[in-house]
Amino acid sequence: MESKKIKVGVVGGAGYTGGETLRLLVNHPNVEITFVQSRSQAGKKISDTHRDLLGDCDLVFTSTHDIPADVVFLCLGHGESKVFLKDANLTPATKVIDLSQDFRLGEKSGDRSFVYGLPELHKEKIKKADNIANPGCFATAIELGLLPLAQQSLLAEVYLTGVTGSTGAGQKLQETSHFSWRTNNISAYKTLTHQHLKEVKQSLNSLQSATEPSIHFVPWRGDFSRGIYVSAVTKSSLTLADANTLYQNFYQDALFTHVSDTMIDLKQVVNTNKCLIHIEKVDEHLVVHSAIDNLLKGASGQAVQNMNLMFGLEETAGLKLKATVH
Amino acid sequence: MESKKIKVGVVGGAGYTGGETLRLLVNHPNVEITFVQSRSQAGKKISDTHRDLLGDCDLVFTSTHDIPADVVFLCLGHGESKVFLKDANLTPATKVIDLSQDFRLGEKSGDRSFVYGLPELHKEKIKKADNIANPGCFATAIELGLLPLAQQSLLAEVYLTGVTGSTGAGQKLQETSHFSWRTNNISAYKTLTHQHLKEVKQSLNSLQSATEPSIHFVPWRGDFSRGIYVSAVTKSSLTLADANTLYQNFYQDALFTHVSDTMIDLKQVVNTNKCLIHIEKVDEHLVVHSAIDNLLKGASGQAVQNMNLMFGLEETAGLKLKATVH
Amino acid sequence: MESKKIKVGVVGGAGYTGGETLRLLVNHPNVEITFVQSRSQAGKKISDTHRDLLGDCDLVFTSTHDIPADVVFLCLGHGESKVFLKDANLTPATKVIDLSQDFRLGEKSGDRSFVYGLPELHKEKIKKADNIANPGCFATAIELGLLPLAQQSLLAEVYLTGVTGSTGAGQKLQETSHFSWRTNNISAYKTLTHQHLKEVKQSLNSLQSATEPSIHFVPWRGDFSRGIYVSAVTKSSLTLADANTLYQNFYQDALFTHVSDTMIDLKQVVNTNKCLIHIEKVDEHLVVHSAIDNLLKGASGQAVQNMNLMFGLEETAGLKLKATVH
Amino acid sequence: MESKKIKVGVVGGAGYTGGETLRLLVNHPNVEITFVQSRSQAGKKISDTHRDLLGDCDLVFTSTHDIPADVVFLCLGHGESKVFLKDANLTPATKVIDLSQDFRLGEKSGDRSFVYGLPELHKEKIKKADNIANPGCFATAIELGLLPLAQQSLLAEVYLTGVTGSTGAGQKLQETSHFSWRTNNISAYKTLTHQHLKEVKQSLNSLQSATEPSIHFVPWRGDFSRGIYVSAVTKSSLTLADANTLYQNFYQDALFTHVSDTMIDLKQVVNTNKCLIHIEKVDEHLVVHSAIDNLLKGASGQAVQNMNLMFGLEETAGLKLKATVH
Repeated sequence: MESKKIKVGVVGGAGYTGGETLRLLVNHPNVEITFVQSRSQAGKKISDTHRDLLGDCDLVFTSTHDIPADVVFLCLGHGESKVFLKDANLTPATKVIDLSQDFRLGEKSGDRSFVYGLPELHKEKIKKADNIANPGCFATAIELGLLPLAQQSLLAEVYLTGVTGSTGAGQKLQETSHFSWRTNNISAYKTLTHQHLKEVKQSLNSLQSATEPSIHFVPWRGDFSRGIYVSAVTKSSLTLADANTLYQNFYQDALFTHVSDTMIDLKQVVNTNKCLIHIEKVDEHLVVHSAIDNLLKGASGQAVQNMNLMFGLEETAGLKLKATVH
Repeated sequence: MESKKIKVGVVGGAGYTGGETLRLLVNHPNVEITFVQSRSQAGKKISDTHRDLLGDCDLVFTSTHDIPADVVFLCLGHGESKVFLKDANLTPATKVIDLSQDFRLGEKSGDRSFVYGLPELHKEKIKKADNIANPGCFATAIELGLLPLAQQSLLAEVYLTGVTGSTGAGQKLQETSHFSWRTNNISAYKTLTHQHLKEVKQSLNSLQSATEPSIHFVPWRGDFSRGIYVSAVTKSSLTLADANTLYQNFYQDALFTHVSDTMIDLKQVVNTNKCLIHIEKVDEHLVVHSAIDNLLKGASGQAVQNMNLMFGLEETAGLKLKATVH
Repeated sequence: MESKKIKVGVVGGAGYTGGETLRLLVNHPNVEITFVQSRSQAGKKISDTHRDLLGDCDLVFTSTHDIPADVVFLCLGHGESKVFLKDANLTPATKVIDLSQDFRLGEKSGDRSFVYGLPELHKEKIKKADNIANPGCFATAIELGLLPLAQQSLLAEVYLTGVTGSTGAGQKLQETSHFSWRTNNISAYKTLTHQHLKEVKQSLNSLQSATEPSIHFVPWRGDFSRGIYVSAVTKSSLTLADANTLYQNFYQDALFTHVSDTMIDLKQVVNTNKCLIHIEKVDEHLVVHSAIDNLLKGASGQAVQNMNLMFGLEETAGLKLKATVH
Repeated sequence: MESKKIKVGVVGGAGYTGGETLRLLVNHPNVEITFVQSRSQAGKKISDTHRDLLGDCDLVFTSTHDIPADVVFLCLGHGESKVFLKDANLTPATKVIDLSQDFRLGEKSGDRSFVYGLPELHKEKIKKADNIANPGCFATAIELGLLPLAQQSLLAEVYLTGVTGSTGAGQKLQETSHFSWRTNNISAYKTLTHQHLKEVKQSLNSLQSATEPSIHFVPWRGDFSRGIYVSAVTKSSLTLADANTLYQNFYQDALFTHVSDTMIDLKQVVNTNKCLIHIEKVDEHLVVHSAIDNLLKGASGQAVQNMNLMFGLEETAGLKLKATVH
């Protein structure tokens, strides 16, 4: 029955999202990896870069992407996807899933227009899409925490704090990813100005069009490598029971997003493609906590979920992952 | 010249704040420790419990507190200080510094009334005080972040998120302090209902009496052992320059609280008695970040600072501590 | 085609190895979980204890194990498996995989005799076994590092140091698993006397019978939750090339144990069922480094691998796990 | 009485050992810092680089070292101290404490010859020294663990494993100090070939001259920023009691090195200048565990201890440090 496998290429396979995408694809039942391109590592074994893949993968990084594929994952730095697509001469039949932020706000590349790949928001569009702009990691956690309220036009002022693991900053060596600095440390950055706010607003506005919500977001660097945890506070007249019903209904068909009736913690989702949500109500304020793995639901996992939808596969294929949890 | 040393007793010396108080007192130039009481460890060497003190301290825990002292530090659980003082029959001349929350809101014990021991707010009162209610850890970080705005009656709605190290929960074994759970994890708790909010409001109201500010605080458990980091967001018409001037002026005489003109991170203050503050302004919102070591400026360090003030010592005596930083 | 699923029961499902076994079984393609017994959690949802399973598993802990199963995993404390099997009245047809140390040294339970479940050593016996004594975590890492040398009777004096994650000590709350103690800490324990040495010697002696090797092992508690890393040092006249050939040959049919020609690190194997090995030669000493995930190859993963072998399934079924790595 | 302060200069003040030396010197009662040189940071405020010093230190990095000083600390990379001293034209009266490995093996710089600055071994020589070669971090932990046995000529084959924090690798950005790699990780390096073995052998041979001990040392990279923990295993006919007596006697005058009669852990010494030692005996093997803070007793703390001895100050001046412990 698994008839034909989908031919998949990965561009920019040596970075963190490239590696994480590969970790998923090597175990995906419906996928054949046809190439993994990397400028910096071309000619070297993939398992020499992604050393956990020793024993799982004998592929070698290629310098070219000029190998037939049904879909190509672009695991490139922000700005590089645009350049790549301009120069790459992909056949029109090759679908694209771009993990950068280059096409999340309606940008086009030649004839290619992109669907914002948040399945909880755009599942039907994704199924028919040829090109996906995969959401940002903080954007995913924030949007999944707020979309049901936006659907009911209930968002006014929202105050959020979120913390992200070090992998969110990629594998580039820099002071704030130096172990001696980051371990046991916390620090704010890009206060109220994080670049993901644009796509967050675009998604919220697509459901709540009459009045634009005000989103005030303080990101923190966390002392761990994986995961995003966000707490959102907003005034609301909803009761807790009504809020839970609203969220349960909104996510009733979501296979990876679940509403928890007890407090969530980050490690419930680490190394999985899930988003967990917990809601509290105190006096007039509603507080929504959401948690994801920034490299999975926040990047490569969601990218594979989008691929599954685009090609009519089981939505969870290759994504039933064992949590690390301890 | 250091004429006479102050005789100091510690009650409840086996816990985290007891241990941290002892670590400061053994090196304090003006202090003689006359007893360290512990019900659970009476008769045992202090360095068997606080094992880093091996080589620094030959004292033994006593079962009694009935040994003359000029001042007694109460390092007891919440509720236990009240009981202790009722039963203890301390001589009236013995001063008390209580690290629990039992007397922070104006409670009295017999004839003893307590000054809230935040030197940045009540330095002159502390100098004359016989009894100190030492502030809570989150309360210290939040108050130091907001007091200058309260002084100018500029606080309306404030949204805060704070993260605390595991030592904030004491040495009791519990699920959320189990290493396998807590490492690499983040989790919210006591959302908008943390017990320190009462003393925070009391302190803010003491400066801003006309209109009561609304303080919305989400505490998180952090994946580190020491430190508190808080980001507070509030609307304000102050310019950034005016805000910085306001804070610099408010803290010009503070020896441990400093305003940083660059972003702060938690480890700048770990293992010190400092509070560091950094202010940002984005559109109409002012964001104030503050950081302390929860066991020092948030507990034992501030307690010793209060002792120094009460006894006319150098305010920094015994508190020039080397940061761990890396 | 996947014809009939194996009916599996888990006894002691609320602990760490119970949880980890469940995380594997819920995604195993050839398994139907018929019961998960727990004395402490009977009647409660499994996902309330193993909270990462929210959305993956709707089962409830049972108080009874009296439900038909083809195989039962015993995830009990040491000593408890013996008691359980004595009292449990399992049907003779029910196979048993015991994760405790109760039957690793040839002990029997009634008519049940146990095969030591290290596939790299006893694969053919395991395929025919009705009862498996699953190896200890440190024992697995040490044996896989030394078996090829034992096969050639090359072991004399071996000096090893190993470090283990906190999950090795289970979920019981104790001082050395308290976050505030364990984070950033290292400490030796059970120096040269670790209980796993008995099974290590038994396995080594099964290959090197003439002269008994002397195994000197210093275990350390590590500042992480998952994984075991062991460095073994021994005199040897083998060249490095010969040693590598010996190990490559010994493990040529092993699906989870791989020899790396570059230095290994712990996270290459975390959250996988792999054992990675790297060999060095300096002057007259051979040094063998080995790494496993203590909860997987060191416990639940190897248990499932044994089940696969016992029931003629693909040896890797349900065990193609994505490493956490970052 | 504190009459005149010693004038101290620091060369290479922007790195980790430079920063740690400054953290000690700013609070040292007998020291006046006359300059802190840094090529990379000249002209900038010290507290902009060592950000925990905000509020403690208003000095600015100089480009020159040409400012009078009684003693200069060289906090330079290996190889750079030699070059510096050749070019620097220090006045002959200026004493030198070099933290690099350039002069630990008897090397001279012009007329300057260096005393190996391990006070437990060479205290009297240090008191009279004009130039100190400060020991390496691993070397300090290993030597302090073995010197008493060497004194009795009891060392033959010794097998050691040691683990070090990330600060041991300095502040240079590299793959193995990247947070996402190092957190939760362990890895061996420089197996049996660590460069500190040379000075270790030199020190052991100075006490045990007849037969040279064989030292086999496996270093590991640890998942923490500060500290070194070493376990040494060697055959010995000493009883445990005799071994403890030997060590107690050897270290009876040592102010920072203590023998613990219970198991030690790393955090007992973190952020202190101590070395703690614990001895076990199992069958014919003696096991000696030793722990230090690599930046203090393993670098800057020992350097200041040496300065205190050279200038006739209290040996503990400026070194009564509060452990971080939790």
